[in-house]
Amino acid sequence: MGQLLGQHTAVNIILFDQPFERLRLEASDPRGTHIRQVLRAEVGTKVFVGFVNADRARAEVLALEPDGSVELQVIATEPAPAALPVQLLIGLPRPHTAKRILFEAASMAVSAIHFFEAARGEPSYAQSSLWTSNEWRERLRLGTEQSFGTHIPDVTIAPDLQTAISQLPVAAARIALDNYEAGTSLGQALPVDAGSVQIALGPERGWSPEERDIFRKNGWKLAHLGPHVLRTETACTAAVAAVATEVGLWSAPTQTAL
Amino acid sequence: MGQLLGQHTAVNIILFDQPFERLRLEASDPRGTHIRQVLRAEVGTKVFVGFVNADRARAEVLALEPDGSVELQVIATEPAPAALPVQLLIGLPRPHTAKRILFEAASMAVSAIHFFEAARGEPSYAQSSLWTSNEWRERLRLGTEQSFGTHIPDVTIAPDLQTAISQLPVAAARIALDNYEAGTSLGQALPVDAGSVQIALGPERGWSPEERDIFRKNGWKLAHLGPHVLRTETACTAAVAAVATEVGLWSAPTQTAL
Repeated sequence: MGQLLGQHTAVNIILFDQPFERLRLEASDPRGTHIRQVLRAEVGTKVFVGFVNADRARAEVLALEPDGSVELQVIATEPAPAALPVQLLIGLPRPHTAKRILFEAASMAVSAIHFFEAARGEPSYAQSSLWTSNEWRERLRLGTEQSFGTHIPDVTIAPDLQTAISQLPVAAARIALDNYEAGTSLGQALPVDAGSVQIALGPERGWSPEERDIFRKNGWKLAHLGPHVLRTETACTAAVAAVATEVGLWSAPTQTAL
Repeated sequence: MGQLLGQHTAVNIILFDQPFERLRLEASDPRGTHIRQVLRAEVGTKVFVGFVNADRARAEVLALEPDGSVELQVIATEPAPAALPVQLLIGLPRPHTAKRILFEAASMAVSAIHFFEAARGEPSYAQSSLWTSNEWRERLRLGTEQSFGTHIPDVTIAPDLQTAISQLPVAAARIALDNYEAGTSLGQALPVDAGSVQIALGPERGWSPEERDIFRKNGWKLAHLGPHVLRTETACTAAVAAVATEVGLWSAPTQTAL
């Protein structure tokens, strides 16, 4: 990131669903509250904004009204960094773990996260308020804002592994992490020129024999992340990082011109 | 891990500082409480134990006394997986972040974590009860127990970067993560045959110009983790994973014979 970013602590981008040139945020909008109270903006202050799955921009505070509303004017835009061509397939974990995965995977800009109810998972996890409210969307948005990008991963939930796999798009490499039966590491299993990668992570209790059969029948390779047993959220971040570096997906940070 | 592990949920190893053949845990020992209340052990139950920086073992519960004490007998031992030849050098982060790094880095079995007070860090972080109490040791121990290994990383805290660097052992590759000035990715900067790697992560506000000079004068390369801005704890896990996969440090999971 450029010099401007370097001078601020934890400057996140503020996301908007639709691009705008000029926008008035009502007093009830938490983004306006953030601009007033966290960024302590004055008239003329410039803030970073992002348009979901589109550009990022620099906007100037045109007005701070007594009623609490905030008026913004976009003064420059640039393309946001692209999402990683990586999709995650994850046995639905406990809500606390899912929250961390949603945030961290969004901050790493994976394309999509597909959850499914694994044979050895807990069916109750799907009833969590994380999923029945909009909390899961909020976690994704916060992760994307952290990343200084604009890409919000697609998220789906399937009732079982076979259903989840049958809904996936084509990918150059498909790897299921398995600390019990895999003989090769994730790096060894990955073709170096894989342009798109899908990675599956099981529940804490591991895959069932039927799930391993589904992977094999559908052309997935089993691979491990070394001899140590990682928490699901750690394994998730580690796997995305390992894929990104092995396949050379980490392009240089964009020196923002905003 | 072997079949036995696969049948249990979240079976962690229980760590002991010294190897033993037979041991009586007093009622006040939290490991005894864990064996009785979490593992719901009976006489004859077998549990996984580990000896810090040494073997892991299977032990049988010989006795559960009315006074709450637990007696264990080791019935088989095997070598624990080796630590990764990776050391972390981290600008002292806020305590909440440090807690996560201690746990996750220990679970990934890095050799050592060297914290230092970065120029753009907050001096108050070093006064946290995390560091003035034994809480930091507890976090490391929990991370190691999660990993099913026995290696507890060495941890040091230095007053500044130059002091921290001057105390480091020799390493084949030394890389400072820098999202502002690095032109190459971590994978590009790493020699493929690096047998040992040191990775430095700065504070949220980035390195100072003086710190970048210290890195350059000491032969460190600057590298990035792609165009997205990660939280320190995410970057830490991602960097260790990227190094482990690039340099081929992830050996196969040991099929435990215990």
